[in-house]
Amino acid sequence: MKAEIITIGDEILIGQIVDTNSAWMADRLESSGVKVVQVTTISDNEVSILNALEGAKSRADIVLMTGGLGPTNDDITKLALCKYFQSNLEISNTVLQDVEAVFSRFNSVVSDINKQQAEVPSNCTVIRNPNGTAPGMWFDEDNTIYVSMPGVPHEMKVMIDKSIIPMLKEKYTLPVIIHKTILTHGIGESRLAEMMEDWEASLADTQIKLAYLPAPGMVRLRLSGSDAEQIENKLQQLLPIIKEHVFGFGKETLESVVIDLLRKNKKTVSTAESCTGGYTSHLITSVAGSSEVYVGSVVAYKNDVKERILNVDPEIINQHGAVSKEVAELMALGIKNKMDSDYSISTTGIAGPSGGTEEKPVGTVWIAIAFEDTVISKTFKFGDNRERNIRRSALAALDMLRRELLSV
Amino acid sequence: MKAEIITIGDEILIGQIVDTNSAWMADRLESSGVKVVQVTTISDNEVSILNALEGAKSRADIVLMTGGLGPTNDDITKLALCKYFQSNLEISNTVLQDVEAVFSRFNSVVSDINKQQAEVPSNCTVIRNPNGTAPGMWFDEDNTIYVSMPGVPHEMKVMIDKSIIPMLKEKYTLPVIIHKTILTHGIGESRLAEMMEDWEASLADTQIKLAYLPAPGMVRLRLSGSDAEQIENKLQQLLPIIKEHVFGFGKETLESVVIDLLRKNKKTVSTAESCTGGYTSHLITSVAGSSEVYVGSVVAYKNDVKERILNVDPEIINQHGAVSKEVAELMALGIKNKMDSDYSISTTGIAGPSGGTEEKPVGTVWIAIAFEDTVISKTFKFGDNRERNIRRSALAALDMLRRELLSV
Repeated sequence: MKAEIITIGDEILIGQIVDTNSAWMADRLESSGVKVVQVTTISDNEVSILNALEGAKSRADIVLMTGGLGPTNDDITKLALCKYFQSNLEISNTVLQDVEAVFSRFNSVVSDINKQQAEVPSNCTVIRNPNGTAPGMWFDEDNTIYVSMPGVPHEMKVMIDKSIIPMLKEKYTLPVIIHKTILTHGIGESRLAEMMEDWEASLADTQIKLAYLPAPGMVRLRLSGSDAEQIENKLQQLLPIIKEHVFGFGKETLESVVIDLLRKNKKTVSTAESCTGGYTSHLITSVAGSSEVYVGSVVAYKNDVKERILNVDPEIINQHGAVSKEVAELMALGIKNKMDSDYSISTTGIAGPSGGTEEKPVGTVWIAIAFEDTVISKTFKFGDNRERNIRRSALAALDMLRRELLSV
Repeated sequence: MKAEIITIGDEILIGQIVDTNSAWMADRLESSGVKVVQVTTISDNEVSILNALEGAKSRADIVLMTGGLGPTNDDITKLALCKYFQSNLEISNTVLQDVEAVFSRFNSVVSDINKQQAEVPSNCTVIRNPNGTAPGMWFDEDNTIYVSMPGVPHEMKVMIDKSIIPMLKEKYTLPVIIHKTILTHGIGESRLAEMMEDWEASLADTQIKLAYLPAPGMVRLRLSGSDAEQIENKLQQLLPIIKEHVFGFGKETLESVVIDLLRKNKKTVSTAESCTGGYTSHLITSVAGSSEVYVGSVVAYKNDVKERILNVDPEIINQHGAVSKEVAELMALGIKNKMDSDYSISTTGIAGPSGGTEEKPVGTVWIAIAFEDTVISKTFKFGDNRERNIRRSALAALDMLRRELLSV
C-alpha cells in the first residue's frame, strides 16, 4: 500500500517554518506497513492543490494532506477539495457541537469565523478533532483514500493515531515492513562504511536494504526488509564489527540511554555547564522520568560563577584559562559535591562565533566526568558553528558518561 | 523566477529525520526573489528521481536537489542524473584535489570509496564543497537550471550562499519580493484574527498577502508583496491594533529580543529553573553574544537543590508545594542574590506526563521575575505535552522579562 503526503502552506515554501508533520506521519505510516512514496509541499492556492491531488493519485493509494484548514482567511483547502470532488460545503452538526464544546470549555462564545469550521464537503466522513476546532475529512473516492487534516501538530497527531490508522487498517490488509535502526556516536559516515564494507557486500544475497543517516554527532544505520529473522541475523553479524561505536537502537537517544543506565545502576547525575549553556541539562530533562536520576545543574557562564558556586580556584583559571582540563575537572568535582550526586558532567569550551584564539580556536571543548573519587576528562575540537558546537559538546559529554556507566 | 526543491532520501520518507534543509533553502531563495513553488521529497531510486526531475521542470525554472551524494552505496543520484541528461560520469580533477585536501587536513589517506566522490556527470559545472567531499553539480540544460547538492546541512548551506545564489543572480535578473513578519506571543491565532478583522479586510484593495503562522507559544503574521511602501503603510496601521502582543519582527526570537534589551539597558540576568530543566538557559545562550548579559543558572530539579543552593525555605515548600507562587518568588530572589545579576527568572511547574494532581494538573506552571527589590509572578495552565510545556514555560518567562525590561 502506497501513500503520499501533501503539505499545504506558503510558510514552508518561503522557509518560515520547518515541516515536522511529514516526518511524524511518515513514521506512523511506515510502522503500519504503508510505504510513503513522496512528500509534496505546495502553496495555499487552488491550482497547486488540485494538481498535487491529481499527481498523488497517480502514485499512491492513500493521500494524506495537512494544512490549510485554520479559521483564518488564508486557508482555501476545503474549497479546493469541493472542486476536486465536485461536491459542496455543508454544515456538519457533529463538528459544530465539537466547536461549541471547545469554546464553552474556555467560557467563550463561538465567533462566526469559528462556526465556519463546521462546514465540510458533503462527500466526506468527518474525523473529529479533540484538540481544536478544524475537523479532519476522509474521502473514499475512485479506489483512493484522501484525508485532509489541520496542520497544527498536536491536532493532526491525535487524528492519525486515534482515527486514521485504525480506519486504514479496517479498510486494507497492510503488510509488515521491519526497520532496525542502530545508533552510533563519535565516528563519521565514511569511516563507518569502511569498517562495514565486507558485511555490507553480504547484504546483496538478501532483501535487506541499508541506509546511513548522519546527524550532528551521530550516524544512524537503518536495516529494512520484510523478513524479521533475516534482519536479526544480519544485525547480529554487524554488531561485533562496530560495537565500540553503538550506543543504542531505534527511537532511543543518547540522553534516554544514559537515563536508563543511571536508573538501572540506581545512580544520580548533575551537570556543570559553561559552553553548553544548559543544553546538556535540557537534553536530560526532556526525557520523561528523568527526575528519578537527575538532581540539578549549574550553568556557570561567567568565571565568577565557576569560582563562587562550583568552588573552582581562581588561580587555576588564571593559570590554565577557563577552557582547560584543570577547570573542566574542578567544575565536575565542584558540582558533584554541591549537588551531592553520584556522577557529574562538566563542559567548558568556546562555542563561538567569537572568543577563539590561535591556541584554543572556536570549537575547542573540555569535558569531564566525576564519580566516586575519580575524574576523567577529554578534549574535543569541533567546528565553527555555535549551534552545532553546543549540541556536539552535550552529546560527547553524555557519551562519556554512558561509557563510564557501562564499565561499572 | 520559479524554483522547486527536490529532497532525496528514504530517511525522510520513513520519518526518521525531519527535512530542515528545504526550509533553509526556501528562505534563501525567497530573499533573492526566487519563488519556491513546490518541495518534493522522494525515495533514493532512479525512477523516482527521473520522474521528480521531469515534474519539476514543468513547474519551475530552477530545480535544486539535495541528498543522495554521500560516499556510501545507498546513494544513486549521480547515476540518475547521467541518465536524465544522457551523459557519463568522469573524474573531475578539481574535486579530486579538494577531496585529497580534506583528508590531508586530518592526516588521513583518501580511500577508494572517497575517490568516487570526484566522479561527476560530464555536462555539469562543479560547485566546490569547502566543508566535505561530495561536490555540488550545476546543469544548465533546456532553459532550466538544475543543481544537485549533498544533504549534509552545513555543506549545502555554504554552497547555496557562496556559489549558487551568486550564480543565479548572474544568470537571471531577479525581482524583489518583500516579506514583513510580525512576531506575537501569548495570544491565539483566531483571537488575533478577530482583533485584526477590519484591518485584514482593507488588504483587499492592495496586492499584499497575509498569513498566520502559529507555533508553540507564538503566532507570526507575515505580510508579503512587492510594494515596500504599501507594506510599510499597512504595517503601521496594524501595529497599534495588536501592539500589546507584538514582541519582535522578522528573524528575531524572544530570546534575541530579551538579550538586545538587556544589552541596551546594561543589565544582566540569571535563571533558576525547575520544570524548564535548563531550557530557558539554553535559549538565552543559543544567542551569540549572550555572554555579555547572561551570568548563569541553577537548574534545581530536586527540592533539596532549591533549598540548599537557592536558599528556599523548606517550610515554604512543605506548606505551599514546590509548584507555588511562594516558591517561584523565592527561587527568583535566591538566584538573583546567588548570581549577583540585575534580573532573574524562575520557573517551577509540572511538565508531565506524571506528577499532576487535581489541584495542580500537568501543565501548571509558576514563573517569577526578580529585579531590584521587586519580585513579580504569574501562573499558567499549559497542556499535557511535556515538550510543549517546557517550551511554552520558557517562552512565557522570557516574555515576562521582556515586558519588565520595556517598562524601565
